[in-house]
This record gives sequence, structure tokens and C-alpha cells, in this order.
Amino acid sequence: MTLSTTTLSTAAPPPPILPGKRLLIPADAPLKLDSGATLGPVTIAYQTYGTLNAARSNAVLVCHALTGDQFVAEEHPITRKPGWWETLVGPGRVLDTGRYFVISANVVGGCMGTTGPKEIDPSTGRPYGLNFPVITVGDMVRAQKRLVDALGIEQLFCVVGGSMGGMQVLQWAAAYPEAVYAAIPIATAARHSAQNIAFHEVGRQAIMADPDWRGGDYQAHGTRPHRGLAVARMAAHITYLSETALHRKFGRNLQDRDALSYGFGADFQVESYLRHQGSTFVDRFDANSYLYITRAMDYFDLARDFGGQLADAFRGTRTRFCVVSFTSDWLFPTAESRSLVHALNAAAANVSFVEIPTDKGHDAFLLDEPELFAVLGGFVEGCAERRGLKS
Amino acid sequence: MTLSTTTLSTAAPPPPILPGKRLLIPADAPLKLDSGATLGPVTIAYQTYGTLNAARSNAVLVCHALTGDQFVAEEHPITRKPGWWETLVGPGRVLDTGRYFVISANVVGGCMGTTGPKEIDPSTGRPYGLNFPVITVGDMVRAQKRLVDALGIEQLFCVVGGSMGGMQVLQWAAAYPEAVYAAIPIATAARHSAQNIAFHEVGRQAIMADPDWRGGDYQAHGTRPHRGLAVARMAAHITYLSETALHRKFGRNLQDRDALSYGFGADFQVESYLRHQGSTFVDRFDANSYLYITRAMDYFDLARDFGGQLADAFRGTRTRFCVVSFTSDWLFPTAESRSLVHALNAAAANVSFVEIPTDKGHDAFLLDEPELFAVLGGFVEGCAERRGLKS
Repeated sequence: MTLSTTTLSTAAPPPPILPGKRLLIPADAPLKLDSGATLGPVTIAYQTYGTLNAARSNAVLVCHALTGDQFVAEEHPITRKPGWWETLVGPGRVLDTGRYFVISANVVGGCMGTTGPKEIDPSTGRPYGLNFPVITVGDMVRAQKRLVDALGIEQLFCVVGGSMGGMQVLQWAAAYPEAVYAAIPIATAARHSAQNIAFHEVGRQAIMADPDWRGGDYQAHGTRPHRGLAVARMAAHITYLSETALHRKFGRNLQDRDALSYGFGADFQVESYLRHQGSTFVDRFDANSYLYITRAMDYFDLARDFGGQLADAFRGTRTRFCVVSFTSDWLFPTAESRSLVHALNAAAANVSFVEIPTDKGHDAFLLDEPELFAVLGGFVEGCAERRGLKS
Repeated sequence: MTLSTTTLSTAAPPPPILPGKRLLIPADAPLKLDSGATLGPVTIAYQTYGTLNAARSNAVLVCHALTGDQFVAEEHPITRKPGWWETLVGPGRVLDTGRYFVISANVVGGCMGTTGPKEIDPSTGRPYGLNFPVITVGDMVRAQKRLVDALGIEQLFCVVGGSMGGMQVLQWAAAYPEAVYAAIPIATAARHSAQNIAFHEVGRQAIMADPDWRGGDYQAHGTRPHRGLAVARMAAHITYLSETALHRKFGRNLQDRDALSYGFGADFQVESYLRHQGSTFVDRFDANSYLYITRAMDYFDLARDFGGQLADAFRGTRTRFCVVSFTSDWLFPTAESRSLVHALNAAAANVSFVEIPTDKGHDAFLLDEPELFAVLGGFVEGCAERRGLKS
């Protein structure tokens, strides 16, 4: 009978030298983390597109999702694919780089140049691994604030992101309301649900179950927990799509065959697709970063930081909000956005809310979704006029 | 920082001696499988409850789901928990064992006494492992038919089951219409969806990624792929519950602590619950059986066997159908049952269809769900009267 498993190299490749900009947060002014720990020095890897105007009033911060990074609007140096949000960011796009100064930074705990578990701990000379402190969405945003300050920007014109990027948008608006003129949280929630924590836990257990993970110390052992990370990615990837999208794309279609093989190979296209998602992901992502960033999402609960009242996170805010959800997103369903909008309304905030009909699921925010572009285009243009940014 | 992973013994325990009844399908009259292979000898492990009447007209076949077995209405010999459907089967229950003769058999490919990959292949003297042929729901039902024939039962009064059990019910009704007086497919579908295949594939990849799986030959190596199987179970378990049920049961409640640990231990109750589900499952289930049975479900597509027309599977049937779905079941959503009902209607079959409102998700069919009992009770009673079974 046919048998095929994901065959992956587990040897560690040489660390890639990533292009792009860096900010150093020095050890003598470290990041203070929500856990109580401090972290420093910290390198923040970031990219910018467009030009900051003289008034420093046209900056847009793009916050990335769990497996995203700072390469928003340019070819990715590792995957050689287009930037992950070129549909939205670029010349003539909604976030027009001829008009706005777009910034995006790899989150703390990430693996694309910003300090995370795979980087060297200066106190030991060895990779942090699990000695890296657990970080939160608050910590990610605190690091971004240091970057924005260093760039001399007092107020961002707009902070925008989907999924975990949307969590960061909300955190920015809550923690630094004066620094955010407009906020666009997309396909997100003010807290991570039990189901989402459960899916993350499955991914983490898959990674930790891989003997090549070595208690998180795989770099020292010259191994990589590729198999566990691939399984984690496969499980997560299902949640990014809708049942309808999976049915439309794949249905029960067979992969490169006319009949069932009566084996465990990838008979169905959907199996082949998932295996591909798993095996390509491990080439660009670090397993420990996956643990830390999923944990940060699990921990996100904005109301908790404000005495259990989400509205209090936004009390007195002057930020303009545009909340967007997608009908077929079951990872961050519309009900979550609606709760958020209720809280914003309770805080008398300026908020628009649009639920976009699509069958593409959670991933819709990354895809060619004309209604999303129309909604964001209208909102951003209106804000730009009010802010006095010439077109 | 706190770190806790699932710690599981990977040594193989001695094979348990399982109580219960056995039917031997001899090597000289083997099962003919859908793959074209034959399988024999085959042992069918089964249990019965109640007494077969003189007319042999009161037999009810209960078909189990992916991880179920034949211990429907009695303490499980391994887990020491109550039978998995004691809510429905027993004295005075809907399937009253004082009135009906209830039969349940472990499926072919299973691991609770019926021949499956962990049993000895008589042609080699070693466990089948991946030499076991890939089986289908059709094969499972073909084996059950042999058992029912051996018990001298020409027509089952009722065939009932949920999830994969419901697939078997449909297969029975399609393959042996004269042998099924009444059929109750619950929380099921006439074909496995792309999303469900995807979730199964994640589970299989988790098992195959475990080095202790040893290419399926773990018994010979004295190992057991406990970690991979636990991850597979955790991922699957999420799909058995609804988002609402997870929120109601666990929400973001912490487990045995007052504050976040800033670590990778089970901070949240939902994590602790999932880990428990994974670690207890491996004590009672065989990893290769998990591969084979999930594959059988993936392959299930009743219309395919009838030229693509599901209605043709039921053309001319005299069986009475009661189709049941649950509002919050996203693994086998109501739309699947509705398609089935449309096909049954197109075949002019006698069918009732009830969608039961519940927030318990797919697992509702196993739980204390009074409306389910009321619906099934009414249907079974009506059929019994027509069939002339005295109460």
C-alpha cells in the first residue's frame, strides 16, 4: 500500500542574513514586560515604505498577524513571494505609499530579525530558547512605541492590522490613545476565545511532542522540530479558511489520480494542500517563536487590564475606529467584533463597523477582497481629509 | 519559567484480555473489501443486551463512532467508565433492553477485539501494522452483516448511530435495504467534507510524525506513538464541541491559579482539559486504528457508489428514516443532513428530519440531550407499533 509522510530536513540551516532596517533598544533602557521581567537589548527589525512628511503626520503602522512579518509591500527575502499585504499597501493602493509613510515591524518574540527566542541571549552567549520571557500583545506594542518614538512620530495617522495585527491595533488605541488618529482592527477580537486557545494549545503540543524540539533547545542540538511545527501549521491553517472555501477550492477532488489509492498518501487535493502548507512554513518560521506568539494571543484580554470593562479601555478616546469582520470567519467571528463595537459605543467613541460578506474565512483580510478595499479606502480617505493630509 | 509537556509512557503494555462475544469469519470465506483485497480470518468482537424474541424481529444494531466501541451499555473494561450510550440504551431507556435485542460490534480496523492493524497477521505471525488493508465504511458494514446473519436475524428492527455510526446506518440502508426496518442516522453526512478530511489529515500527520510510530511498526519495536496520537485526539476533540460549549464550560478561566503564569503550562482550563483528553485517549486506543478508521470516514461518499446520485442509493427503499442533526454541530452541520433528506425525499422514502437546538456541538449525540431522547423515543415507538413489537 502507498505510504507517504511529510519528509523534512531537521538539520538547522545557517541563519539567513535578513535585509532591512533595525532599531536597537539598549540594555540600559530595556523593555518592561507585562510579566514583570525586563528585556534588553532588543533589536527591532522593521521596514518603511513612502516618505514621512514634514509635519510627521502621515505615518501608518501596519501590524502583522501570527506568522506575518515586516515585509508588507515588497518581495519576501526568504520565500521570494510578494509582500503579504501588497493588495492594500503600495503606490495607488488604499494605503498609498506615494501619500503615506508606512511602517511595519516584526513583533518582539518573532523570528524575522526582531529579538525573539532564536536570537542570542547576551547574558549567556547562547540562543534564548525557552529562557526568552513570555511576551504579550502589550509588550509587542510597547516595543513598537519605542520605534515610533525613535522615528520622531508623535501621532500615527493610522494603525491597521488583521487577526493578531488587529489585537495590536486595539492595544495601541487603549494604551496610547493620543498617538493613534485612526485605528482599523480587522478580523480580530478584544480577547482570545476558549476555542482559539484550544487550537493554539494543539499546535504547541505538536511542537513540544517533536523530539527534535529538545525542550526548546534545538538550536544547540543542531536539530529543528520541523515535523511538529508542520502539524501545528496544518491545524491552524484549517481555521484560517471557511468550510465553504475548502469545499469550493477542493471539495473531495482527488490529487493527481483518478481513483482512491486505498492508502495513506495524499489522495485528496485538500490533503496535498495542507501538507504543502505545513512543509513550506517550516522554512520560514521558528518553532519557539510559534510557541511565544500563540501564547501572547492567548493571553490577550483587553478588558482584564481595565477592571473587566472593555469600554473602559477606550474611555475618552478621540481615535476614529473602523472595525471590520467577515461573515465566514469562524476563528474571529463577527460576534467578537460586535462586542468590541458595543464597548466602543459605550465609550462614546467614533466608530464604523462593517461585516463583509465573503466565503473566504479568516484569511479574507489577506486576500483580494474588493469590498474590504472599498470600505478601508473610504474610511482612510475620510480620516485623511479631516487630518488635513492632501491627496 | 514554567514548562510542562504531556509526559506519556511510550512502552507497550501487555495486550489486555477483553471480555465479550466473538464471531470468527473464517479464512476460507473472507471479507471482500472495497479495495479489492480480501481479509480473513476476521474476528468480530461484539456485545449484546436484552433478548432476541422468537420472531427475531426486535434486534437493534448500534453502530459506533470513530473512537467508540461495542461497550454501549455497560462499564468499559479498560476505562471503567459507563458505556458510551447508556443514556439511550438500557432498561427503560429509548432503546429499552427489556424490549429490544441490542447488538453492537467493534468495527473492522478497530482496536477493541475486532481484527485491526494491531492484531496478528496469520500470514506473517506479526502484527498487521500498515500491512492491514485500507478499509471503508462499506467494509465495516459488510462485516456487521456477517454477524447479523450469523445471529440468524434477517431484518434488523433498527440500525442507529451518530457520526461515523450514522455513516454506517446509511451504508446499511443503501446496501441491505430489506434488512433494515428503521434507520436513525444522527449528526452525520452521506459524504465526508473537505474540512473534515483536512482535520483527519492533521491527526494522521501528527501520528506519523511521532518517531515512536516507526513507520507503523511500533509494536515490533516495543514503542507506542503516544505523543502523536494525543495531539491527534486534541485536535479532533475541539471539533466535537461548539465554540459556545467551550466558552460556557471554560471561557478564559484559569486552571488552579489566580493569575497568568507567563509560561507554557496549562494556564487555562481549556488547555488542561484538552491535555487530559489527549493523555487518557492513548490508554485505550491504537494509533494505527486511528489512521485506518479516519481514512474510512474520509473515503465515505455514498453518492459516488451510485453514479453520483445520492437518491439512487435509496431508490425503492421501504426503510423508515429518522434523520437528526444539532444546531451547533459544525463537524456535521445541519446542511449535510438536509442534503441527505433531500435525497431521501427524491427517492420517495419515508423520512422524518429533526434539527435539535443545542449548544453542545457534535458531541450532543453522546450527551444527556432530552430533546434527542424525545425525538428518538417517539420515532422508535411508532416503528415498533407498526412492526408489531409489543411494548
